[in-house]
Amino acid sequence: MDRIVIIGMGLIGGSLGMALKRSKIAGVEIVGVDEDRNAVTKAERKKAIDRWERPAAKAVESANLIIVATPIMAMRSVFEEIAPALQPGAIVTDVASTKTQVLRWAKDYLPDRVHFVGGHPMAGKETAGIDAADALLFQGSTYCILPGEGAAPAAVETVVGLAQSVGAEAYFVGSDEHDVLVAGISHLPMLLASALVEVTSGSASWQEMSKLAASGFRDTSRLASSDSALRKGISLTNQGSMIRWLDEYIDVLKDYREKLADGGENLMPRLEIAKDARDRWVCRQKDAPRDPSMADIPSFTQRMSEMFGGRLLGRAAKRRWVE
Amino acid sequence: MDRIVIIGMGLIGGSLGMALKRSKIAGVEIVGVDEDRNAVTKAERKKAIDRWERPAAKAVESANLIIVATPIMAMRSVFEEIAPALQPGAIVTDVASTKTQVLRWAKDYLPDRVHFVGGHPMAGKETAGIDAADALLFQGSTYCILPGEGAAPAAVETVVGLAQSVGAEAYFVGSDEHDVLVAGISHLPMLLASALVEVTSGSASWQEMSKLAASGFRDTSRLASSDSALRKGISLTNQGSMIRWLDEYIDVLKDYREKLADGGENLMPRLEIAKDARDRWVCRQKDAPRDPSMADIPSFTQRMSEMFGGRLLGRAAKRRWVE
Repeated sequence: MDRIVIIGMGLIGGSLGMALKRSKIAGVEIVGVDEDRNAVTKAERKKAIDRWERPAAKAVESANLIIVATPIMAMRSVFEEIAPALQPGAIVTDVASTKTQVLRWAKDYLPDRVHFVGGHPMAGKETAGIDAADALLFQGSTYCILPGEGAAPAAVETVVGLAQSVGAEAYFVGSDEHDVLVAGISHLPMLLASALVEVTSGSASWQEMSKLAASGFRDTSRLASSDSALRKGISLTNQGSMIRWLDEYIDVLKDYREKLADGGENLMPRLEIAKDARDRWVCRQKDAPRDPSMADIPSFTQRMSEMFGGRLLGRAAKRRWVE
Repeated sequence: MDRIVIIGMGLIGGSLGMALKRSKIAGVEIVGVDEDRNAVTKAERKKAIDRWERPAAKAVESANLIIVATPIMAMRSVFEEIAPALQPGAIVTDVASTKTQVLRWAKDYLPDRVHFVGGHPMAGKETAGIDAADALLFQGSTYCILPGEGAAPAAVETVVGLAQSVGAEAYFVGSDEHDVLVAGISHLPMLLASALVEVTSGSASWQEMSKLAASGFRDTSRLASSDSALRKGISLTNQGSMIRWLDEYIDVLKDYREKLADGGENLMPRLEIAKDARDRWVCRQKDAPRDPSMADIPSFTQRMSEMFGGRLLGRAAKRRWVE
């Protein structure tokens, strides 16, 4: 029987399991691993996994596909731990929010006999943990794919199939570029949200102010509530890109301040350009709904099987699979 | 017949009309005024008003309560225009997002024979205009009340009754304090959102980045899409408070930058404090659901009638109505 092992039964690991189950991939067993017994029990109850096993090294022994969904900072030791137990041809992927460091760890700690293909599903929630896991979390989202050095084309196709199975669209990007891009649209917003909460909640008038805070404050500050381990993983592995964006951002705010001090009239065109840009982005998001039913689900299962049997390797290598 | 006139059939004016209609206040006619014929026609169709009339000066002639719901920058001229037509004892309120300037205009342009009680319902939406109007917009929200100089207690009670009728909770606050508080939880977030969109959408990699942007970016940037007239009114009447918050905010971001440059580890406690503060705020919001059914609706109608008849004035004046 084909086997997928998900290590880390949090929001993303749990949601991936639930989404895979929902996609009715045939003849594949999903095994969950988590040090927290409570998390795997809940995952079983939520039907995110067929069963759980521990330790990770034992669970991965006969696995075809291993999804590492732990916090970023735990990934190195997970790679170290599972490395000796991985069977030849196994495919390892991850879901970390930053990729340069993770790809480096994969290169350093995973054996040559396995294929590493990094992944980053661009979906999340304010609430972390298995309780918040949701089979529909990835529907219509973008799923970044970053093949490791020497990953076979069929292994890459398998991870693309995984992304499609959970309702997402695969997107190939280099790790350096990935980390700069997500710093702009995800890590910078996280810092902005945290700083907003820091200045307001630290103010002497917070008690009064907090009564007036409504949906605008709630949305702008949402990312301040993101999972602590996630924030830590991001902040300790993507400092350079975050600083680059912060510097540009602070310059824009200083400009805004200057224009307000001049009466505010000259700030209007700037805010108008931002409004237009965002409105266009929102429209494009709406215009391009991705149809999860387009997911090539049977071929994912088939490919995983074939990949494991080695049959697809030669055929797939001849195809153009990365643009 | 008692008559409420709403001047400005946008999101807030239309939603107030719809919410008042929904509250089934008895024997009160709601008249809508807007220079845009299309807006009043839509408002009639959405049952936000009983009928429309123009010009404003004619519509307010026999009105008991006038709600000015135009963009802030139009309020001065609305006050000027309706001033000669207001009947003695009429109550005028507004819904502007900044209050110091509006209270000054009310003092300068409205006659002594009327009562001005400023208002600011703390609710909004990304989409502006009558199309987005919603009878439930104010349910569970806070409604700031700022009595003008010389406003009779019964007039203040009438506006409190208005807030309650639409499902909100009245909140008394001085205009200077109001403008500082909302600058922190509403106007600063608006600038942050706009600046986020400016740096990202202005980047050479925006085309790629925009494909990865998901719910985090969407929420953090939401206020960048707020109504242009609203942004203008805020930016031209509350510069001082906005600058005060911006300065504090930029200092926090510079601190974050420094800690990232040092490796990021020392940033963690700061982000943790912000997370805790926001999580507590969200919990309090959830714990204190305001029950709109508690709204003292019959007494609002009765009070408005009585107020107009002058009967309640003496009685209410003896009561303590502002803490």
